[in-house]
Amino acid sequence: MIKAIVISALLALVTVVIFTITAFRYPKGTEKMQMLSRAIQEGANTFLRREFTVIALIVAIIACVFTLIGRWTEVNWKTAIAFVIGACASTLASFISMFISTRSNARTAEAARHGLKRALSISFTGGSSTGLSICGIALLGLALVWTIFKGEITAVNGYAMGASLVALFARVGGGTFTKAADMGADLVGKVEKGIPEDDPRNPAVIADNVGDNVGDVAGLGADLLESYVESIIATVAISATVGILGEKGISLPFYLAAAGLIASIIGCIIVKLAPLQDPQNNLNLGVYVASILMIISGYFITKKLGFGLKGFIPLISGLIAGLVIGWVSEFYTSNKYKPTRNLASYAQSGPAVTIVQGMALGMGSTLLPVITIVAAVFISYKLIGMYGVALASFGMLSILGITLAVDSYGPVADNAGGIAEMAGLPPEVRATTDKLDAVGNTTAAIGKGFAIGSAAFAALGLISAYISTMKKYSPDFKLSLTDPALICGLIVGGMIPFLFSSLVGSGVSKVAFKVIDEVRRQFREIPGLFEGKALPDYKTCVDIIARNALKRMILPGVIAIVMPVAIGLLLGPSSVAGLLMGALVTGLQLGIQTANTGAALDNAKKYIEEGHFGGKGTEAHKSAVIGDTFGDPLKDAMGPSLNILIKLMSIISLVLAPLFAKFL
Amino acid sequence: MIKAIVISALLALVTVVIFTITAFRYPKGTEKMQMLSRAIQEGANTFLRREFTVIALIVAIIACVFTLIGRWTEVNWKTAIAFVIGACASTLASFISMFISTRSNARTAEAARHGLKRALSISFTGGSSTGLSICGIALLGLALVWTIFKGEITAVNGYAMGASLVALFARVGGGTFTKAADMGADLVGKVEKGIPEDDPRNPAVIADNVGDNVGDVAGLGADLLESYVESIIATVAISATVGILGEKGISLPFYLAAAGLIASIIGCIIVKLAPLQDPQNNLNLGVYVASILMIISGYFITKKLGFGLKGFIPLISGLIAGLVIGWVSEFYTSNKYKPTRNLASYAQSGPAVTIVQGMALGMGSTLLPVITIVAAVFISYKLIGMYGVALASFGMLSILGITLAVDSYGPVADNAGGIAEMAGLPPEVRATTDKLDAVGNTTAAIGKGFAIGSAAFAALGLISAYISTMKKYSPDFKLSLTDPALICGLIVGGMIPFLFSSLVGSGVSKVAFKVIDEVRRQFREIPGLFEGKALPDYKTCVDIIARNALKRMILPGVIAIVMPVAIGLLLGPSSVAGLLMGALVTGLQLGIQTANTGAALDNAKKYIEEGHFGGKGTEAHKSAVIGDTFGDPLKDAMGPSLNILIKLMSIISLVLAPLFAKFL
Repeated sequence: MIKAIVISALLALVTVVIFTITAFRYPKGTEKMQMLSRAIQEGANTFLRREFTVIALIVAIIACVFTLIGRWTEVNWKTAIAFVIGACASTLASFISMFISTRSNARTAEAARHGLKRALSISFTGGSSTGLSICGIALLGLALVWTIFKGEITAVNGYAMGASLVALFARVGGGTFTKAADMGADLVGKVEKGIPEDDPRNPAVIADNVGDNVGDVAGLGADLLESYVESIIATVAISATVGILGEKGISLPFYLAAAGLIASIIGCIIVKLAPLQDPQNNLNLGVYVASILMIISGYFITKKLGFGLKGFIPLISGLIAGLVIGWVSEFYTSNKYKPTRNLASYAQSGPAVTIVQGMALGMGSTLLPVITIVAAVFISYKLIGMYGVALASFGMLSILGITLAVDSYGPVADNAGGIAEMAGLPPEVRATTDKLDAVGNTTAAIGKGFAIGSAAFAALGLISAYISTMKKYSPDFKLSLTDPALICGLIVGGMIPFLFSSLVGSGVSKVAFKVIDEVRRQFREIPGLFEGKALPDYKTCVDIIARNALKRMILPGVIAIVMPVAIGLLLGPSSVAGLLMGALVTGLQLGIQTANTGAALDNAKKYIEEGHFGGKGTEAHKSAVIGDTFGDPLKDAMGPSLNILIKLMSIISLVLAPLFAKFL
Repeated sequence: MIKAIVISALLALVTVVIFTITAFRYPKGTEKMQMLSRAIQEGANTFLRREFTVIALIVAIIACVFTLIGRWTEVNWKTAIAFVIGACASTLASFISMFISTRSNARTAEAARHGLKRALSISFTGGSSTGLSICGIALLGLALVWTIFKGEITAVNGYAMGASLVALFARVGGGTFTKAADMGADLVGKVEKGIPEDDPRNPAVIADNVGDNVGDVAGLGADLLESYVESIIATVAISATVGILGEKGISLPFYLAAAGLIASIIGCIIVKLAPLQDPQNNLNLGVYVASILMIISGYFITKKLGFGLKGFIPLISGLIAGLVIGWVSEFYTSNKYKPTRNLASYAQSGPAVTIVQGMALGMGSTLLPVITIVAAVFISYKLIGMYGVALASFGMLSILGITLAVDSYGPVADNAGGIAEMAGLPPEVRATTDKLDAVGNTTAAIGKGFAIGSAAFAALGLISAYISTMKKYSPDFKLSLTDPALICGLIVGGMIPFLFSSLVGSGVSKVAFKVIDEVRRQFREIPGLFEGKALPDYKTCVDIIARNALKRMILPGVIAIVMPVAIGLLLGPSSVAGLLMGALVTGLQLGIQTANTGAALDNAKKYIEEGHFGGKGTEAHKSAVIGDTFGDPLKDAMGPSLNILIKLMSIISLVLAPLFAKFL
């Protein structure tokens, strides 16, 4: 089985190399475009290097702790090593995807001069390289850990935890960076000075483009790499601890992962080669082909391993649930449909009503995804117990290679548009990149729904694994809703996503406050800046944001790490189970709400900009812009970090289960 | 024991009569003031009558259903009768408190001409009459039901459900009314036309004052009456079903209720008679005296009934938790402290950052209340099991008579200020009422924290009662966190408060949208209105809001009723327990968040109006006003309705437990 995942992972990486080489042959555009692209690369690199220095320190501390407590528990140096490998895998994936995407942006802008087809091909190269390399690295790392520790599950769990920890900091740090930059650029540039988006006179404009890469590419990649790894490990861990499914229960997720990755490669190739009508259709075609290939191969793999429909149905129920959640997100947040159009109409009553209505929309949009998830969980559980839930979670993520590719192509297109604007390319080029970007916005909303759904599933899989591990240590480990420790855990757990969102949200506004100050200062102090006769000091903006965003990422991260440990040591292992469930319950809802509120407010603004309700320059438009600015940190900082919060808390608890078991 | 509650209830009602007679002797002010007061009375009466007609219909339907299913379950005509009595008690309490408070407003304004002391005395009369009559009626109704059905607990549960159902509709209907009116009045009056608050030229100004009464007086009263009744009944129900505590377990809450009500009466008298330095101190003195009296009598009652410290500690841990939650709310939302002052400073960066920061503040403010609640639950449970949790919930509500009095005096003071402004009384009168109103705002924030905390406790008590009832029907009724039905219930339950808030929030914006249209129309079509030469058509505004608010109250109410029934019949009784816990977990957090976000944004605006960050008329002030308008529906419509949502779902499940037990 290890051979299967290694082969598929290598195939994926080879595809990435071929894609990248082909794409990098395309010209990089004018001198100015290259300069801008380099500025973005540099900014992103500087931030990522600093960010990962901080993260490395935290990783080192935790690895030491694991080694130290190895005297008393089964959590020891082996877990520490797997943990470090997981952290490295996630870091590597972040850097690779960043490398490729920041080098595809100017090329996409240049290609847009020659039409939509070529621009799509290059921007999608950036996206698919990200998607495929993340899956490839995740599987190679897993194969490595599995081989070193010969499947010893307490050690292997550490691998997922390493990936998760890096993801959390990458999401919070990157999310704070991108949104503070965005708010700073917009509030002074668009609102106060009245200059357009991506105007080179705006001192925060490079920081804004850097943000798209560090937040949406590196952050998203680390997030989904984690879900992917965790859904595999949860399945394996349940099988290993419950023990009833034997070797086959352990090998099933590996074979499925290999099949899913190959299906994704084929899907990506189809997106690039299919005759173009409309970018959205091209992307959809790739996803559908991959889904169908996955369903077919899933059927044969589960049959071959003797699971039959009992294994196959959970798998596809997860896959279908993922697609349904994506569609629901699109329905609520695209301005092709009623909810967002309706929201746009409220902008006529002013910003407060707009935002209330936007929040209400997001809150109401939790209904259908929750019912979908619950249905998939219930069916899977009834068929094959907790193992089925973990399998469904993997089902959702099985074709991550292509879904992530579709997702991460958005920021490349966005950046390309920015470069086209800043470099003063002709308007028809901008129109082409805008077309790509609009598709990117829809796929981003779908991708966010997908990230949340998969996080909920992965967390549920991990919680199940935690419970079954506990039962291994103590067969009469009880989890009754009449146990006060469990009730207290549930209530405290439900509070954590709120506390965490609060820290992330106020972190963004604190950093944005500083950016606004700096941008205002530059407009005031640099003579000729507003007139376009002098260049702003982009670098200082990037620097201020980087420094402050990193400061703001520590506390939320520490809370996520410390809470399960504290509750476990204070109130015992049943309280931890309650904590995890409570965090899952509120984190899921808040995650969906923040993502959809933000996306709907964004698209409502775009709808008005298309000329509805008076169009640009009206009071309605101003209200919609305020609504959009409010929604930005929700959808790009709070929401995505919540996904990782619930997964990280769950994987920490699973890793530390042997420790908590001592307090039974 | 029935004698004890009847005597204390009658004492409370006698005090109300004496208070009211004394207060009504004071003059009603000028002709114009009386006219305004009458307009508010009329508006409030019209709305309440219509609202309760709709509610009566729903009550009748449910009573019929109970009678019909009586063939197969223990839920029968007896439950139906108790249910109707509960609904009537809540309705009666709403009307009485409305009657007194709408008749105290003009008198308070008139008294404010003669100084703070007299104004406080009259406005507090309104408040204390509300507080004491609600407790009195609640206990008399309970005594009636208990005597009729000789303590048959399945019937008595119906009493709480009746009170709860009325409360939900009163809160949602009243909350939607008050906030739509407020937003409509402010957005057109203050923002578009630039006229001050409570300006008689504003067509929505009477509706706004009506709203204060139907939302904050009638709604709040019904809400806390429900918590009060439910905490008593939960204690009784657990004692009756678990059976181990015998007669004494049943009689303890009754004796404590009697003692608490008498302590409240004494506290109210002290507020009225104490020599005045500062209104806030006077109110605090009354609350502290009542608390101390309650603690002393609680000690002796628990000792006398043989519980000793095991009964006493849960009682006072609940009482203390209530006070702590109140203090925390004050800390986060009063502009005397750092969080709100800090929030005000963000208004300089525009409305979007203000609102993000306001949300972050509210989300972060969940930490301390949750820890307080969890600590009280844990201690109480460890001492005396689920009965202890219910006892703690009653402890928090034991001196409701005075805490509610302190709370409901706010709207009276607010209305008095409105009348003073509209009737053109001299500025020093307005200054006096403003001083009262400022105190009222703080007590309202504390009161909201208290309402949420008590709702969480009461719901927890009811869930415990539900579980112990289920165990009576089936001794091996299991509630394991590994049961998929329970997990699905938890996740769906966690979603309901979001869905519900969404409906309430979008209801408010929909109605506000209509009010805004109407107010704009009147300014456009009534000649001389803006110049103050013509009167606006107040009545049409009230009418439009009333009609639409009632329409918007149906769906959220139906969801609260239908969800537990649907889940119970579909997935069985363990799923219901999960549903209730899930709803409690997210409802509690959302309730705290919405209340504190709204109050902090309100007070941040006031802080700026006091002259900080440039004061009125600056961009910072404009942003703060937008923030306040956004926060209004959160704190006065969504948040308070959430309290009732979680209680109503829990009491419905408790009442229907015998029905669900058939599906075990």
